[in-house]
Parts: sequence; C-alpha cells; structure tokens
Amino acid sequence: MDELLEQILKECHHYTKEGKLANYIPELAKANPDDFGIYIISSDGRSSRAGDCDKKFTIQSIVKPILLLQALMDNGTEVVRQHVGVEATGKPFDAINASDQTLLSDHLNPMVNMGAIAMCTLIHGETYEEKFQRLLELTRKLAGNPEICLDEAVYLSEKRTGSKNRALAYLLKTYGMIGDEVEDVLDCYFRACSIRVSCADLARIGYTLANHGKLPFTNESVFPVEFARYVNAILMTCGMYDGSGEFAIKVGVPAKSGVGGGIMAVVPTRMGIGIYSPALNAKGNSVAGIKALENLSQKLYLSIF
Amino acid sequence: MDELLEQILKECHHYTKEGKLANYIPELAKANPDDFGIYIISSDGRSSRAGDCDKKFTIQSIVKPILLLQALMDNGTEVVRQHVGVEATGKPFDAINASDQTLLSDHLNPMVNMGAIAMCTLIHGETYEEKFQRLLELTRKLAGNPEICLDEAVYLSEKRTGSKNRALAYLLKTYGMIGDEVEDVLDCYFRACSIRVSCADLARIGYTLANHGKLPFTNESVFPVEFARYVNAILMTCGMYDGSGEFAIKVGVPAKSGVGGGIMAVVPTRMGIGIYSPALNAKGNSVAGIKALENLSQKLYLSIF
Amino acid sequence: MDELLEQILKECHHYTKEGKLANYIPELAKANPDDFGIYIISSDGRSSRAGDCDKKFTIQSIVKPILLLQALMDNGTEVVRQHVGVEATGKPFDAINASDQTLLSDHLNPMVNMGAIAMCTLIHGETYEEKFQRLLELTRKLAGNPEICLDEAVYLSEKRTGSKNRALAYLLKTYGMIGDEVEDVLDCYFRACSIRVSCADLARIGYTLANHGKLPFTNESVFPVEFARYVNAILMTCGMYDGSGEFAIKVGVPAKSGVGGGIMAVVPTRMGIGIYSPALNAKGNSVAGIKALENLSQKLYLSIF
Amino acid sequence: MDELLEQILKECHHYTKEGKLANYIPELAKANPDDFGIYIISSDGRSSRAGDCDKKFTIQSIVKPILLLQALMDNGTEVVRQHVGVEATGKPFDAINASDQTLLSDHLNPMVNMGAIAMCTLIHGETYEEKFQRLLELTRKLAGNPEICLDEAVYLSEKRTGSKNRALAYLLKTYGMIGDEVEDVLDCYFRACSIRVSCADLARIGYTLANHGKLPFTNESVFPVEFARYVNAILMTCGMYDGSGEFAIKVGVPAKSGVGGGIMAVVPTRMGIGIYSPALNAKGNSVAGIKALENLSQKLYLSIF
Repeated sequence: MDELLEQILKECHHYTKEGKLANYIPELAKANPDDFGIYIISSDGRSSRAGDCDKKFTIQSIVKPILLLQALMDNGTEVVRQHVGVEATGKPFDAINASDQTLLSDHLNPMVNMGAIAMCTLIHGETYEEKFQRLLELTRKLAGNPEICLDEAVYLSEKRTGSKNRALAYLLKTYGMIGDEVEDVLDCYFRACSIRVSCADLARIGYTLANHGKLPFTNESVFPVEFARYVNAILMTCGMYDGSGEFAIKVGVPAKSGVGGGIMAVVPTRMGIGIYSPALNAKGNSVAGIKALENLSQKLYLSIF
Repeated sequence: MDELLEQILKECHHYTKEGKLANYIPELAKANPDDFGIYIISSDGRSSRAGDCDKKFTIQSIVKPILLLQALMDNGTEVVRQHVGVEATGKPFDAINASDQTLLSDHLNPMVNMGAIAMCTLIHGETYEEKFQRLLELTRKLAGNPEICLDEAVYLSEKRTGSKNRALAYLLKTYGMIGDEVEDVLDCYFRACSIRVSCADLARIGYTLANHGKLPFTNESVFPVEFARYVNAILMTCGMYDGSGEFAIKVGVPAKSGVGGGIMAVVPTRMGIGIYSPALNAKGNSVAGIKALENLSQKLYLSIF
Repeated sequence: MDELLEQILKECHHYTKEGKLANYIPELAKANPDDFGIYIISSDGRSSRAGDCDKKFTIQSIVKPILLLQALMDNGTEVVRQHVGVEATGKPFDAINASDQTLLSDHLNPMVNMGAIAMCTLIHGETYEEKFQRLLELTRKLAGNPEICLDEAVYLSEKRTGSKNRALAYLLKTYGMIGDEVEDVLDCYFRACSIRVSCADLARIGYTLANHGKLPFTNESVFPVEFARYVNAILMTCGMYDGSGEFAIKVGVPAKSGVGGGIMAVVPTRMGIGIYSPALNAKGNSVAGIKALENLSQKLYLSIF
Repeated sequence: MDELLEQILKECHHYTKEGKLANYIPELAKANPDDFGIYIISSDGRSSRAGDCDKKFTIQSIVKPILLLQALMDNGTEVVRQHVGVEATGKPFDAINASDQTLLSDHLNPMVNMGAIAMCTLIHGETYEEKFQRLLELTRKLAGNPEICLDEAVYLSEKRTGSKNRALAYLLKTYGMIGDEVEDVLDCYFRACSIRVSCADLARIGYTLANHGKLPFTNESVFPVEFARYVNAILMTCGMYDGSGEFAIKVGVPAKSGVGGGIMAVVPTRMGIGIYSPALNAKGNSVAGIKALENLSQKLYLSIF
C-alpha cells in the first residue's frame, strides 16, 4: 500500500504546478507549493503513508466538520438543524448568500463560512475562549494527538485581515443569528481555522467519521453513528465548495478541503485519508490532492456509488 | 419484508394528508392523494411490495436520470460534462438560474429543468421524435417493461401550459446551448416527463443504477459502472431538488423525485426502490414517500454514510 | 444654431470610432458607423439640423416611450401603473429581472424589454395587427410624418432570432402578465421595434413630449400634460438603460436611446432633439450621440437641474 | 402661501395614520407620529410655513446629498465619480448589493448606505472626527443655522446597533474601497446621520441646491452649479429609495427622504422645501410628506417634466 501511495504521488506531482498558494493572508503564501503528502488509516488497522505526510499546516475549512460535530455533541441534531441549514448553496465558500432578502437559518450551510461562524455560537462554554478550548480538545482527541495546537501567526493574520468574515458575521448579527459580540465569535472562528495539523491527524479524524464515531485502534466511541452520518452527508453534498458535484462523480466519497492545502476524505466503513498539497485551484481546493484522490478511488474502488 | 413494508406504509400514511397534489397542470390534480405504494428489488433477487404499487403515474422529473444515462450512453462523460455542469445550484427545480449574467454550461445541472432540456439535444436521433423513442426504449429496457408508454393527456397538458419551460428553453437558445428549434426540443422534453410508470418500474430502474448498470435477475449490462456512479453521485447531491441535503442526512441514498408523486431510490449494491404517493411538500417532493424512506433507511441501515 | 450643430458634430465625430454597431441581428450590422446626424425643434418654432439627419434607421427601444404613451392614452395612468411598475431596475435593457422569485408587475419597467412587451398587451385593438397599426399611426402623428413605415428586413430578422425576448415573454406568461398568445404579442413588439425613423422624426416626437402633449407648429394637443410628465419622468430615471444616472448628471434631460443608433431627447418646454449615430457603447447607447448631447447641454444650458 | 400650506397639511394629515415610525433604533420610535410640518423658501425671497416646522428630528439619509456635496467640494467630480457610481441600484437603501461578485465602485450609489459610507472616506480631514466636523460645518452653512448639532442619544443608539451598516462597511473594506479602520469610518457615518435639523433647515439646504449653489437671501456661492446638477440629478433618479420612479412621476422634482421622517425637496431655480412627518411607508419614506408634495406639485406646477 505504501508503494501504491508513492506511485500516486509520483504520478500526480506535476499537478502541484497547476495551482496557486492561497494568498489572502501573507502567512499562507509562505507554504512550499512543492509539498505533497498522503496518509491513510484502514479498517484493518493498518496505516500507510507517502511524501510530506508529517508537515504541519493550518486546518482552515477542514475544521468545519469538527465544528459541526462539536455543535451536534453539545446540542443534538434538532437544535443544530434549527440554527444552520443543510442544503447546498450553489455558491463559493465565502458567499454572502444574501441578496437583500431576510436571511434565514435555512440559507446557511455548515460547510460555508457563514454557517460555520453561526456554529461557533452553538458550542457550549462560558466564554468564547472556553468554546475554542473544547473544540481544540475534540480535535486532539479525534486525531489522537494531544500536541495539536494553534498557529499563532496565521491566527493573528486572519484576525487582522478578515474583513469578509466580519461582513458575514455582522449580517448574521443583523438577522439575529448571532446574539453575542461579533468580535468574540469571530475570534473563536479565526482560532479554529488556525489549528495546525498534519496528514496523519486528518486521516485519523476522517477514520473516526468513517468508523461510525469510533476512534481507530481503540474503537472508543466519541460520538454516535447518527452524527457521523449527518457530517458525512453534508461533506458529500458540500464539502468541496462549489466543486462538490464534480468530486462526487470522480472520487465518490465524503471529503473536506481547506485553503491551507489539506483534504480530509472519509471512506465509510473503510478508511480515513489525509492529504496535503498547498497549491490550490480557482475553487480553493488542492489541485494535486484531488487528482491523488481520483487516482486512489479508481485503483481501490472507493466510490460509495 | 412485505410485512415490514406494510407496516411502514401504515405508520407513514397520515403524512399523505400533509401534502398537496401538484396543480400546475390540471391532469396532475386528478390523482388520488390517498394513494401510497412501495416496491423494492433486492440484490438477493427478491422483490417486495406493499400498497398501491401497481398504480400508474407520470414519471416527471424521475426521467432526468434516464435522460442523463441516455446522454452518457450516446456521448460519453466528457461530452455530457462539457454541455451540462454537475454542481448543485442551490435553487428550485425550475430555477431560472440566470441573473442577467452570461449563462454557462457549468450553471446547468442535469437534475434541474434547464439542464434536462439541454440534455434532450444530446440524445442521438435524426429527429426529436426519434430521440424520444430511444429514450422510451431505454426506459422500457431498464424497467423490464415493454408496455411503458406515454400519458397523452398529461403530455398535451404540459405542452399547452409549459410557459416556464419555454422561457428556460429560449434562454438556453439565447446562450447557444440549444441549436435546434426550441419547440422540437421541448416536445421531446414534455413527452419524456409524461412517460407512465409504476413503483415496480422505478424499483427496477433504481436497481440497475444500484447494480453497476446490470439489469436485475439477468445481470445483463446495459451501461458501464462509470455511468452508474456519475448518475448516482448527482442524485445524491441534487436528486431531491432543494431538499437534497436534508434527504442525504435522513435517508442517505441517491434518489430522485418527481411532481407526479414518484420517488426512485438507489441503494448502491443492495436495492432499487420505487415509491408512489402524490401529495407533495413545498419543494415538490412526496411527503409520505420521504417519510417512508426515512423509516426504511433506519430499519435496514440503508445510509451509505 | 445650424452652425453650432455643425460644430458639435465635428467636435464629436471621432467618438463614432469608439463604439460598435449592434450585431445581434445581421440587419443592424449593415449600418454605416460613420453616420452622424442631429435635428432640433425649438419652442420658438425653428428647426435646426446638421449631418445625416434624414438617414432612416429602426427606432428600436425609442419606441418604448411611444408604446407607453399609447398604453396611457388607451387605459389611463391607473391601469398602466397597475400592470407595469416605474422603478429603475438597476439592470440592462434585456434583463431577466427575475431571480427565481415570483415576478410582480412592480418589477417591470416600461423602458426595459419585459415591461415594453407587457405594454403591447395593453394597447387597444381586436388583434395584435390592429394594436400595431394604432401604435404606428400614433408614431406617424407625433412625428408629423405619414410615410413612416416598417423595416421589413429588420422585423423579420428580429422575429427569427429573438430568443431572449421570447424567454422574457414566456416568463411574463408564466406569471400571468400575458394572457394572449406569446407569439402574437411578440410579433407586435418586434414590429414596433422595426419602425423606420429619421432624426427629424425623433425631434418632433420629443418636442411633443417637451411641449406637454402638443404637436409642434400646430399646437394640436395629442395627449394630456399628465401623460407627458409620466413618460418624461421615466425617461429621466431609466431612458438610457443602465447609463441613465450618468446621463442625468452630464446632460440632465429626459431621453431615450435605441440600439439602432438613435437618441430622442426631451428638453421640457424648450426642445425636441433627434440624433443618429449607430456606433454603440457597451450599454447599448450611441457613443457620439451622448457626447453631442453633453456638448449641447453645456453650451445651451439644457440641464433641468 | 401660508394658507395654501395650512390647507395641504389639513388635507394630508390623515395619511400620518397610514405609516409607522422607524423602529430599528429605540430613539426613533419615540417620535410623535402625529407631527406634520412644512417650510418653503422661494426664489422671490419669501419663506412660508405651516404645522410643526420647527420640530427637531435627525437628518438620517438626507445627509447623503450633503455628504456628496462635501465629497465633491473636496475632490471634484472626477475623483468622486471614480469612487462611487451613479446608477440606480433598483434596491432598498440598505441593500447588500453584492451577490458574491467582485464589488466595483460602479455598483455603489451615493444615495444608498454603502455608497454614503464610502463617501465618508473622501471627505478631507486628518481624522474622522475632523471630517465629521467639516461636514457639520457645511450643513450649518447651507442651513444658515450655526446651532445645528448632533443628537447624542440617536448617535449612540445607531452606533450600538448598526450591524447591517457594519456588514456593508466590512464588505467595502474587503473590496478595497475603505482603506481606514471600519469603526472610524462608521463613527463618522453614524454621527452624520444623527445631525438634528428642522423643516426650516432642510428648506434652506434644498434652496441652495435649487439656486445653483448660492445661499438664500445673500446669494453667496457655496459650491459651483456643476455640483448642484450632479446632486440634483442623483436625487431625481435615486433620492426616494426604491420609490424614486413613482415620486418622479407624481411630484417631479429632486428630493431626499430620511427615516427620521424628513424630506428635502429641490425645485430647480424656484424653491427649497422641508417637510417633517415621521410615519413611514414600507420603503422608508414619510407617507404624509409624499402626499403633501404631490398635492403641492399639482397646485404649483412644480414638476420639471
């Protein structure tokens, strides 16, 4: 299997040249566009790896399914569903999603920024500092890695420059979907996006989603199967931004990408996959990462369709 | 299994009172809102049934995946993908989907009317009469039912009143996505929507999609697995109109509904399901039909997530 | 005054090279982009002219204020206002103006295609042929020119290729704003747009609007001052497509342009102006025509602000 | 004339019962919906009045033309035009006006909030405190009233609750249209909206716009005629929010309304009019105020069309 992964990285490496580093904050533009790594955990207990699979990068939007999990664990599906809709918006990740109509919770989606910001308010905790700590703990637990921590430079950079996210949050406030101070909520969101992970971390988190909420190796149950299905279903319909339809056809598994260059893929009952390659296409997805998953899906018949 | 289906129909029957018959054409409003039937074909070769599963109704939007299949069989994935996009539009089935911007093929989706109309032009055939005949033959073959035919009254009613579809088709023409005469293309589309089927027919078509393109019982291959994946993936992200996200969470299988009251569900490798209950919710999906599928999915662990 | 006009044409002539001929129908692309003419009728009874002011061209959108006048004369302001709104749409002339919301009469504007098509249904007459004849008669009367007639080649060309207008008309039909057959209504609209006029004709029509509904020279009253105000107000807010705001600042008088290259300007109580120069800017307005009006407005203090 | 005004107030007073007080900030809801006043300054040097014409209220959106004037006086038309467009948006006053497309200066309008916020950045001054002071001084000068000052309670209320305006400002920042700190710019904008005026003040400001930039009585020129035309033209096309088209037909003069209940009308070369009646229609315009202007326009032939 390690050989297969090596071969796939080799075959897909030239795609790293077709993308561009995210440059909306200076920190992200410092990544090495040549980096490419993959890590897989299978249900037979094996883990396989190739390339730069221990490199650290910020989780960015891949924190959205974890935010959703934490919101579900703290409130149950009913409450979460009431506050954040589940339909595809047909729009990019940072969509305003409001054409001068009353904004309703049904217009939000947990995988686009506005919905993710709204989910921060649903996490339990006295303060937004505490909410974030609980999210960080969940991330560490799912990844089996207590050393996961914040990338301070990215966090500060996001916080300083996040005008679009501020606009989105003030719209939520306008329509009564944020009760607390906008800056507090955003601080939690910016921290969440700035958590540093590796392919190995993503593979373990993805595996838990594939394994009905049970951690790899120990099989300890962290959340009920119902939440895994909720998250996986949304990843399938909306996990790859406005490239989700194409991805469903070509790869056929739930997945989430982040502008930090990561992709977490969930092969229900079979695998968790973590990929890192920071050169992105126009939709904000890792170019080589998607190609590697297409290749892998064909070779191992991963599509759930 | 027949008992289980009987029980589910019983439990869900009161939901038929929560919906309304489609009334945009007089013919559809003549249905009996009380009708409720289900038919399942399983990979072990068994078929199960309950309720009004032999009632005939018009296929309406459930013809869209068949249209897509025929387009794929005639042109391959590359050409189809070039003419009709695959991303969720975040809009209702008859969306204009054009806010005074240049309309691109990427804005179309095979499961919304505009994309489906565009697909009619991709089917091979000298005339639109011939194109329709080929589509009808494919429907018959997939359903294993040579007696499937057109509901003339519905067809004429649609043809007479289809202003919205005419508007959509002329927009396609405006942007060069229809080369032929709009009325010819629409005639084919209106006929396609007016094909009469039963739950049993839908179950068999769904089974073939679940079974990698091979017919039930004979295992004769009608189309390659690649096309089944293409269709199923789009059904998962967009098959239930703007209720697709909710359906993915609660049922978790590819499916397509039609305003005639039918739903075809595809449980990959396991089942094809046909349901009929013509009382619809605001999004155009059969209310009791969805409830029955939720119920069934929980009892038989159908979700692919 | 003739000298002033000659001088203005000379100063602005190089702007004819900055625009492009309308090419959406082949007939319009046959115009000579070099043509440039102007004709003015003043309240002192004088008429002045320069350049190609007797050249014939199709009236195109400049028929919209005449359509509105006829609708007002046949129905009064109340009824017209009920069927076609008066607010600026903020959109181009052929805007779809419908983002999947129920289309209301308030969303229409008499100066954009959809509103103009709706107005055709308001004109009195047994048939659409008769409605058109009445519109043609009004045009001839306002222009004092009984020889005004249809450009058959343009009419047939529009009729053959008008997919966008068909899409707009079918949308109107969808929302119950057209009761009659779409093709009949469109035939009237396409004929209306294909009426052939000269700068002199436009100047006289504009003068009547400037003169409270009374014809030049004879002072015969064709319509009440109230209708003149209705039309002029809409010309001011929406007459120059999505360039109306700029035009209001720089020229400051009600005006209407057409893609045939004409502009009719109304200087209340003072003048009617007709201009012809078929090279258009991106918004569909005559480039040199606008420049000539800016120039003229500054020299003669025409702005009503 | 005073008698005429008394009569008009009497005739229109019952319309005050058809509107509602603005309630988006508690302070505005404290107004007396029964208040109704009018003040006119004519070019013959007379001033006329009736009703509650000395009542103070906050200027709200009527500060937008003053903001535009200050921006023009500080930068000239070229620079202002480059930063803030002039076309009608076809949308309400607080429109987001951005459907996930790159926001361009041409999408802004000085009479809607986003454009007005952008104009704050164009006013000269070291600090936003200084910019506001200069705007306040201009307001005092135009109104001939050095005692005009801020309504602190309204200002603080707006500042505390202005989520929608914050969303708009952060969008401007996202697209590079605000360079400075958003909160500084908004503070200036919230102050500007909270300036307290009376009908008499508005009449004098309107008169200066009607009088080519020259103050009433003294005829001192405060700004060139070119700026008056720029402002008046925009008031005509966009001054009454998405009711501007209707107002142009029925009243026919440039005007600006504010949710505080004021209307300032400009009758070029003839009059400045100030009205106060805080009960608003659904579009945010004073119901009785508009009726009074319709009435007055008919009686005094005010329409410029």
